[in-house]
Amino acid sequence: MTDRPGNSVRMAIERVRADRNSRDQDLVATEEPLEIRLYWDEGDKQTWQSIAITMRTPGDDFPLAAGFLYSEGIIQRREDIARISYCTDPGEPQAYNIVNVDLRPGITFDIHRLDRHFYTTSSCGVCGKATLEALEIRGCPALPAGPVVNREVICALPETLRDAQPIFQRTGGLHAAALFDPQGGLLGLHEDVGRHNALDKLIGQQLLEGRMPLPPCLLLVSGRASFEIMQKALMAGIPFVAAVGAPSSLAVELAGSFGMTLLGFVRSDGFNIYAGAERVVLDSR
Amino acid sequence: MTDRPGNSVRMAIERVRADRNSRDQDLVATEEPLEIRLYWDEGDKQTWQSIAITMRTPGDDFPLAAGFLYSEGIIQRREDIARISYCTDPGEPQAYNIVNVDLRPGITFDIHRLDRHFYTTSSCGVCGKATLEALEIRGCPALPAGPVVNREVICALPETLRDAQPIFQRTGGLHAAALFDPQGGLLGLHEDVGRHNALDKLIGQQLLEGRMPLPPCLLLVSGRASFEIMQKALMAGIPFVAAVGAPSSLAVELAGSFGMTLLGFVRSDGFNIYAGAERVVLDSR
Repeated sequence: MTDRPGNSVRMAIERVRADRNSRDQDLVATEEPLEIRLYWDEGDKQTWQSIAITMRTPGDDFPLAAGFLYSEGIIQRREDIARISYCTDPGEPQAYNIVNVDLRPGITFDIHRLDRHFYTTSSCGVCGKATLEALEIRGCPALPAGPVVNREVICALPETLRDAQPIFQRTGGLHAAALFDPQGGLLGLHEDVGRHNALDKLIGQQLLEGRMPLPPCLLLVSGRASFEIMQKALMAGIPFVAAVGAPSSLAVELAGSFGMTLLGFVRSDGFNIYAGAERVVLDSR
Repeated sequence: MTDRPGNSVRMAIERVRADRNSRDQDLVATEEPLEIRLYWDEGDKQTWQSIAITMRTPGDDFPLAAGFLYSEGIIQRREDIARISYCTDPGEPQAYNIVNVDLRPGITFDIHRLDRHFYTTSSCGVCGKATLEALEIRGCPALPAGPVVNREVICALPETLRDAQPIFQRTGGLHAAALFDPQGGLLGLHEDVGRHNALDKLIGQQLLEGRMPLPPCLLLVSGRASFEIMQKALMAGIPFVAAVGAPSSLAVELAGSFGMTLLGFVRSDGFNIYAGAERVVLDSR
């Protein structure tokens, strides 16, 4: 069995600057594939399927696997998982890059739910609208009305995120996803080379620690808000998403369709509200 | 048939700033699914398969499809494609979100090549090393020794990119991939909500315009350099990759394994060399 990979590696680089060049060491964020294997009972026998390979930063692999299953709608609650472990099968030397998830006996898994192409079978072909309708059909959880958040709290989020991002500080190379309470208190933070992985880790951690359904809270992502980010937030019952970067059109449409709040370009001195302004208190005096 | 989607949409937002709040309009980068369908001959009859659905910014959909097929190794040359068209099948109202690619008669397509999980069958399980070995097995093109590029040229690339990014200027929400000649002349630029799409569009455009194999050139990406970016550059025969953001560990390893040059944190006053320093001229006086 190989060593467990770290979340960053030291590499020899040449630093080229205006005044001088130097041979130096640099910390680089680790990117390694992770395979998620799902085990479940079919009749009397156990069967398994490799359901995902994602390029991720090692660390919090169990929350990543759990969060992926949850945000894909494969599991509905923590109890659906009987066991999560690294693969120790003979002949699998890269044990720390394979996570086995055993479903609880009686939990069925429909392999067709995994078909990411499911929305092509929708009546209107493949389009953003059909993609949103497919989410409705999937039965997303009802979102809480709250939280209602003051602008001062929102403007302080990016700095809190930066101060709390341990790997980014060292590598400059990671996406972050963080969960905050309505007063701006940090509830959880995860980093990854893939922004969807960072969010899956965050959601999976809350799930595994028994905090689902989540209390009213808000999500901050370090980069842009895409359809995928909004979809995962929706599945996790997070009604309020703030992004340091720009949103995409489909992210804004998803927020509108499902009653979510979406903020973009969140800075210390302001932000843009793209949907759900009723959850933002602009004048708290 | 619906209207062709644009690359950005105007949306009503609320702009919250320190001094004042205002209702305003904002341009948001469009994100819509694109399905790529491949048609080929099997014996006497034509068959087809949906091979990808990607969330992309509409525009340059044909280059995107061609570049995807090329960087996945499904086609080897422009002539392998007989025709690219939007889907006009009855019952497909979202025609502009489905691209049909007809392979030239005689070009075979092995559906198993599409299996993105191929590296799991490698002897060493799933790991970065196996992933790199799988690329070797796939038979990546030999990379040209050049180009050799002066530091002044490199430091000027980000500004050239920003000045030439039309949609980003308006939406702030897009990744860019640009191709430059060794003197810093811009050969091509594409933007997309997905960075892999931006690169596929860039590569596909060069392919469709008959410029493969590429002359010595360098690629600049607006964000981070991941394994996926390096893999696509390698497949396209681009030996020199510069990123405005940080590289991942596997990106650096891939560059080292295949003799590529990889620069990160490229700014007007400097950059870091992670691999392939022999292609960088630090002192051109």
